[in-house]
Amino acid sequence: MLGFALFGAGRIGRMHADNLAASADAKLVSVYDVHGPSADAVAGKHGATVAPSVAAALDDGAVDAVLIASSTDTHVDLITAAAKAGKAILCEKPIDLDSSRVARCWQDIRGLGVPIQIGFNRRYDPSHRAVAEAVRAGEIGTVEQVIITSRDPGPPPADYLKVSGGLFRDMMIHDFDLARFVLGEEPVEVFATGDALFDENARALGDVDTAMVVMRAASGALCHINCSRRAVFGYDQRLEAFGSRGMVRSRNRRPTTVERYTETATGTRDPLLNFFIERYQEAYVAEIADFIARVEKGEPLAVTFEDGQKALLLADAANESRASGRAVKVAG
Amino acid sequence: MLGFALFGAGRIGRMHADNLAASADAKLVSVYDVHGPSADAVAGKHGATVAPSVAAALDDGAVDAVLIASSTDTHVDLITAAAKAGKAILCEKPIDLDSSRVARCWQDIRGLGVPIQIGFNRRYDPSHRAVAEAVRAGEIGTVEQVIITSRDPGPPPADYLKVSGGLFRDMMIHDFDLARFVLGEEPVEVFATGDALFDENARALGDVDTAMVVMRAASGALCHINCSRRAVFGYDQRLEAFGSRGMVRSRNRRPTTVERYTETATGTRDPLLNFFIERYQEAYVAEIADFIARVEKGEPLAVTFEDGQKALLLADAANESRASGRAVKVAG
Amino acid sequence: MLGFALFGAGRIGRMHADNLAASADAKLVSVYDVHGPSADAVAGKHGATVAPSVAAALDDGAVDAVLIASSTDTHVDLITAAAKAGKAILCEKPIDLDSSRVARCWQDIRGLGVPIQIGFNRRYDPSHRAVAEAVRAGEIGTVEQVIITSRDPGPPPADYLKVSGGLFRDMMIHDFDLARFVLGEEPVEVFATGDALFDENARALGDVDTAMVVMRAASGALCHINCSRRAVFGYDQRLEAFGSRGMVRSRNRRPTTVERYTETATGTRDPLLNFFIERYQEAYVAEIADFIARVEKGEPLAVTFEDGQKALLLADAANESRASGRAVKVAG
Amino acid sequence: MLGFALFGAGRIGRMHADNLAASADAKLVSVYDVHGPSADAVAGKHGATVAPSVAAALDDGAVDAVLIASSTDTHVDLITAAAKAGKAILCEKPIDLDSSRVARCWQDIRGLGVPIQIGFNRRYDPSHRAVAEAVRAGEIGTVEQVIITSRDPGPPPADYLKVSGGLFRDMMIHDFDLARFVLGEEPVEVFATGDALFDENARALGDVDTAMVVMRAASGALCHINCSRRAVFGYDQRLEAFGSRGMVRSRNRRPTTVERYTETATGTRDPLLNFFIERYQEAYVAEIADFIARVEKGEPLAVTFEDGQKALLLADAANESRASGRAVKVAG
Repeated sequence: MLGFALFGAGRIGRMHADNLAASADAKLVSVYDVHGPSADAVAGKHGATVAPSVAAALDDGAVDAVLIASSTDTHVDLITAAAKAGKAILCEKPIDLDSSRVARCWQDIRGLGVPIQIGFNRRYDPSHRAVAEAVRAGEIGTVEQVIITSRDPGPPPADYLKVSGGLFRDMMIHDFDLARFVLGEEPVEVFATGDALFDENARALGDVDTAMVVMRAASGALCHINCSRRAVFGYDQRLEAFGSRGMVRSRNRRPTTVERYTETATGTRDPLLNFFIERYQEAYVAEIADFIARVEKGEPLAVTFEDGQKALLLADAANESRASGRAVKVAG
Repeated sequence: MLGFALFGAGRIGRMHADNLAASADAKLVSVYDVHGPSADAVAGKHGATVAPSVAAALDDGAVDAVLIASSTDTHVDLITAAAKAGKAILCEKPIDLDSSRVARCWQDIRGLGVPIQIGFNRRYDPSHRAVAEAVRAGEIGTVEQVIITSRDPGPPPADYLKVSGGLFRDMMIHDFDLARFVLGEEPVEVFATGDALFDENARALGDVDTAMVVMRAASGALCHINCSRRAVFGYDQRLEAFGSRGMVRSRNRRPTTVERYTETATGTRDPLLNFFIERYQEAYVAEIADFIARVEKGEPLAVTFEDGQKALLLADAANESRASGRAVKVAG
Repeated sequence: MLGFALFGAGRIGRMHADNLAASADAKLVSVYDVHGPSADAVAGKHGATVAPSVAAALDDGAVDAVLIASSTDTHVDLITAAAKAGKAILCEKPIDLDSSRVARCWQDIRGLGVPIQIGFNRRYDPSHRAVAEAVRAGEIGTVEQVIITSRDPGPPPADYLKVSGGLFRDMMIHDFDLARFVLGEEPVEVFATGDALFDENARALGDVDTAMVVMRAASGALCHINCSRRAVFGYDQRLEAFGSRGMVRSRNRRPTTVERYTETATGTRDPLLNFFIERYQEAYVAEIADFIARVEKGEPLAVTFEDGQKALLLADAANESRASGRAVKVAG
Repeated sequence: MLGFALFGAGRIGRMHADNLAASADAKLVSVYDVHGPSADAVAGKHGATVAPSVAAALDDGAVDAVLIASSTDTHVDLITAAAKAGKAILCEKPIDLDSSRVARCWQDIRGLGVPIQIGFNRRYDPSHRAVAEAVRAGEIGTVEQVIITSRDPGPPPADYLKVSGGLFRDMMIHDFDLARFVLGEEPVEVFATGDALFDENARALGDVDTAMVVMRAASGALCHINCSRRAVFGYDQRLEAFGSRGMVRSRNRRPTTVERYTETATGTRDPLLNFFIERYQEAYVAEIADFIARVEKGEPLAVTFEDGQKALLLADAANESRASGRAVKVAG
């Protein structure tokens, strides 16, 4: 049984709290949020205490681990404080928008030996994960191409966008991580292009709402990612791995298996599950379960701080490539 | 918040207990099972008390409702006792194997005005339910044909089979109910045939493991049900409604959306979800949520005692038809 | 190279003429039709002669084989005449609507040793055929259930219906043959029911437009056929074989592989190919190719006169069952 | 009725000859091939004459049009000669490997007013074409992303590869054309990368067997193409158009609609149709039919010389991008 402090009681924090409450192996001990009523609501729902401060939460002996689901700019400080307090850490992505700040954080904490995991939930999606496992098991022989489709149902609000770090670091960072997970090796070159085709807010910020990336790994394997901030038919999340002996892919998920046949159309299905909380529900549950199990057994965690760092470097390279029109080399 | 006593702590009772525990609107108050250690385990897991007897459980003011998940032969007595104690009742199917006993039970309790629901879980499956709702909304015009595929992954143990009442009353009773739910009217004629093709236990009992039924409703609409006690690829659960303006159907469910492509085959997917606890997980949760919501609002329940009775009469008619080789008329 | 006389230059005759013209192994020598202009048109298109009479066509030494695509009531006489003239025969289904007349025909010709094949085109459909071959190869182990879905896009004109012999002998006869083909054994019992739910012409004739059949084979294997004279979404033709080791099925065919995704629906596909000439185009071509190859090699033909007879007997049994409400035994 | 001379009697020439023979609106008049026996075989099969020379074929008044299916290096001379002889021209892709030679050819012939079409067969595939038509009809709103998957079943022989002009000009040229067809506007920027991952012959030639391209159009719409010279599961040909109001895509084609279900897998389908002659059979037939119809009506042809030129320029840009690691601008 692992005792948790939750930092951040917004949408994703509330979901994690529900998952902790439903787990037989976790206990939500305390909740902290700069917005008091949010913390009150989550703590009240699950019988946890409201921590008066981060320090108080970390000082509590009943707290074994922290789940960081607050805004991105708070992650590094919370990670550092929790690491110094000797708590296991599960932190939402991205670690930070500034890779040098991330590097410094890593220098500060790596010697402390505290288990830390970054919340790349897609690695725990049963379908995406089965693709990665099939690749690793050699089912498709040598990997030659990975194709990731990643489209949100609709653009985020302007306020969110402003502090998001841009599409590559905010949204596609998941896909960079997924690419590394499936390729089984590091990309060494990144090309990116994109534009703001429909979202005025993105355009005003110099950000993009539509993007395509091609990456090359040292082996020569190629990876394509296509992203859009808007898919009217739902949350479009697909993964395809292609190799010398075949292909394995994960397809979209829908709320039901219903098909309709009418005079003008056949095989018509529901819109896709919408949005990440619905689509990746099983993944979030599996993520926490795996985190708890590994922390309790003292095993290395599955998604490391360095994974968070590397995905961020790929996002940075994508930004640079988009600006320069060149493929940008990254350290493998 | 509805307080529940659970009668029966076997496989399906344990699942219901988990679902009650996960519901914000229910509280598992007590558990009773003739096998003490089973009751202990479930009660212990969820912080409920172990009831020393049915009477004690029903005597408890904290118990608003009972969930009956014990063996079929105990249902009528438990229903009757709970009804007399004024508790709302959610009882697993079938009510009983003997339709005259069911009729007497109904006579005993109908005047008591107690809410009672029979556990035809498939009505709550999001996919099957969407089919029924599309039919009711007129999407396919006049219903002309309903086709139900219902195949278990493997035959039950001999001990279970002996007291099961036979395939039509034990297994196909779900499909009879589903047929009524989708047709929106009563079958008036039943033809059934079947054989024990692979299960020696079924053969020894004069039971079947493979069966086909055709039913006719008063409007002339037809319904086919095919059942098997064994599908090596998983739990095969499909529903098709066909009418003057089109068709709507629900297809099987799998654990992932993964597809494999190899030198010899493409589009290969996982075996089907296996078995009812996995396949109908969402349905069981929705069933209890709907039961609770209606009991609390004092609304009529969605699946009535008479629904349980009518499905049983169709099963009886199927048995008679199989024996006589004739289509058997049933009161609509 | 086999020289053909074509009897009957209606819709299906014209299609056969096109297929003969496209075959490198066939030559359309002559065409006969009671309606002269029809014969003229087909003969003109393909450079064949118009035969002044059936006798003249059969008297022509360049004619090795006859393709009978005229109205059903002419089949027996044409078969008999062609057989006496020593021509190989490919005759559209059904042989005749009267099974005693069919039996007499068989008595008249069986001694003549002339190759004769009945036009059950579905045996040559690549998808249905692959199902039958998988069954025969033991892929699904012992066959336990066969399910056939057979729905026409719309009801035939009243004139056609009047002489059609009714749904079971006109339309479902294809499915009876397909059932025998896939089961690999003879049905020994037939139950049928149905109604005229939408077609006033069928109702006026005492015919049905919607029907369901269940058949039992000697092994206990079961077969269900569902038929409708109207499917607004196209020609619904599906086949499913289920057994001890798995299932194999053929699904519907569409003109393209296009899928559409919109705000309200995903995966939307075209209406089904419509109608038999489109859906079974490849089957008709393969049928004639196989007929020619076997005739030329002197091999037994793949779909025999007796196959035509047996399908008709099953249709007769279905009519009897529908009238009596009983399962009707047939000689296996 | 259009009389054709066929130049080139190899695999693709033979296929075109069969299609001309099956068309009621075309007549194969003569065949020329540098390899005499090939010409003899095709001419013999279809009752055409063997032309002793190109000049002789072009001199024949019965020849209205030429179909150029000879090796790529002969295309420009044949086009020029045929144009000067006033024949309508249907020429296989690519026009030539050297874009300056193509430009000179265009200068030589454009004033002659001869109808000329380039054989980009995919525009005539019913499924890809339906995607393009849906886009043009505004079904998906503004086009934002186009994704093309294009994988051959296996690499070509070394001899072919040597004269192929490399993957971008030989194979992906089809996809460049398809991209233009679907986007409805010109790409203005091309990024390409790739490697020889499995084909020693490609590696020896400095060619690639695996490639990914991203293109940007003036509107900001993006297009991704992924190519491989080997897909063990067949000929992988998919097209996806994504826009502001939805998505439309064409999926792969298989020989049958059969699905298999076993203990370990479900929904298993055939390998994909393999190779272009099978996959694009309908497209090749439609291409010639459209060419004939437009020539006879004097209408502009659907796929112009300039289409051939523009696809080649995109391939050249891809080569340059691959060499430089930069996105290369092209005149829109």
